[in-house]
Order: sequence, then C-alpha cells, then structure tokens
Amino acid sequence: MSKTLHLGVKYKTFLTSNVSDDFLAIRASGNPITAEGLVRMYNNADLVVELSELVKIHRLEANSDWGFAAFTLKESFSFKGQENNDLSSYSMIFKKKDEEWKIAWMQRSSGNTDLSTWN
Amino acid sequence: MSKTLHLGVKYKTFLTSNVSDDFLAIRASGNPITAEGLVRMYNNADLVVELSELVKIHRLEANSDWGFAAFTLKESFSFKGQENNDLSSYSMIFKKKDEEWKIAWMQRSSGNTDLSTWN
Repeated sequence: MSKTLHLGVKYKTFLTSNVSDDFLAIRASGNPITAEGLVRMYNNADLVVELSELVKIHRLEANSDWGFAAFTLKESFSFKGQENNDLSSYSMIFKKKDEEWKIAWMQRSSGNTDLSTWN
Repeated sequence: MSKTLHLGVKYKTFLTSNVSDDFLAIRASGNPITAEGLVRMYNNADLVVELSELVKIHRLEANSDWGFAAFTLKESFSFKGQENNDLSSYSMIFKKKDEEWKIAWMQRSSGNTDLSTWN
C-alpha cells in the first residue's frame, strides 16, 4: 500500500468513528459537507492526498462536555493531476457523549493562510 | 446619520461590549483578526457597509456555559468603491462569564456560499 493511499484510508477510518451523528464540515466556500461526503471525496480516485500535517495549534480548550480547537494544517494533494499546497485554518468543536469525545462541527478556511498573522 | 453609517456604529458598539478578552475571528483566508482589528476595519472610510442580514441559522445550541451557532449572512458593502454582495457562512462560539454570554471565537467563509447546499 502506498504512503498516500495509506493516509487516505487512515483518515476515512478515523473520521467515520469519531464524528457525531449530526456532524457537518463547512468548506472554504461556506457550503457544508457531511462525514459521508468527505469519505466519498477521499474515495475519489482523482484525489491523491500526499500530506496532511498539523502545523500549529492556536487554541485548545474544553469544559466538562464541550471542547474547541483551532489549528492550521499544511495539506498537499493533487486533484485530477492539479497540485495543491494549502495552509488552511480550522475551527473544530467536540462534544462528549457516553464518555467519548466526538467531532461535532468543523469549519475550514481557504488554503492561503499566512502563518505569520497567527503570532 | 445615514443608514449605512448607523449600521457600522451599531456593529462596533455591539462587538466591543460582547466579545471575550481572547476573542479572535478567522477570516476567509485563514488569518485571524482581533475585535480591535474589526473595529479599525469598520472605521476605515473606504469601507461602506450597506447590509448585514441574517439569512439562515443552521445550528444553535448551548450547554451550561458554552454555546455554538452556525449561520449564513448576506452582506453588501463597498470597499474603495468596489461593490461586494456576499453570502458567507459563520461558526461562532460563545462562553458565559459572570452570567454574561460573550462571543469567544468566530470563523467566516468566503462570500460565495450556495444556500441550496444547506437544505
């Protein structure tokens, strides 16, 4: 199994078992996508994910049953052969249900974050 | 006072008194801006805000001291005479401190949300 294929499979498995039933991700456009939609995207042979790296955590906090994280990811991928090298900022909300933390919501920015603005 | 100027003044007053000390807004680019930065933006004579209208609330929930809202705004404004008509999706996190709800975090998408994807 190639490294890139492996990354996609890991991501899909993680996603499916770690999101709440009503999870949605807001894309850079402002349109939502479900976990199933994200998995379908990763199953698309036109998408080859090369790298998804946590560059910086800006905020990470929780109370008894809600959590919140803000971070920037470096993501390299090609879609139909077109290379993308993105730096994107995410806000992510977690909720604890039956003693397990699940990702309940996510919003992703466009891929041109300037990391120096986060200092 | 013109209608557009009035909207800007209302927004600035609301923002200043309703955000937490560590509030940040993530812009569509993925870069953060402070409440002071937003107020400076609204004080810029080049920016004329014409409309900021709540079009749809997608999610609104809270536990004892955290809250979360996701919504789409219709925003019309001009910057240096250039007209913008945006539909943008927001994620917003609230926290209760001393019995008062404050906006603790916000992320805004780019201005091209397709509302039909939210049905």
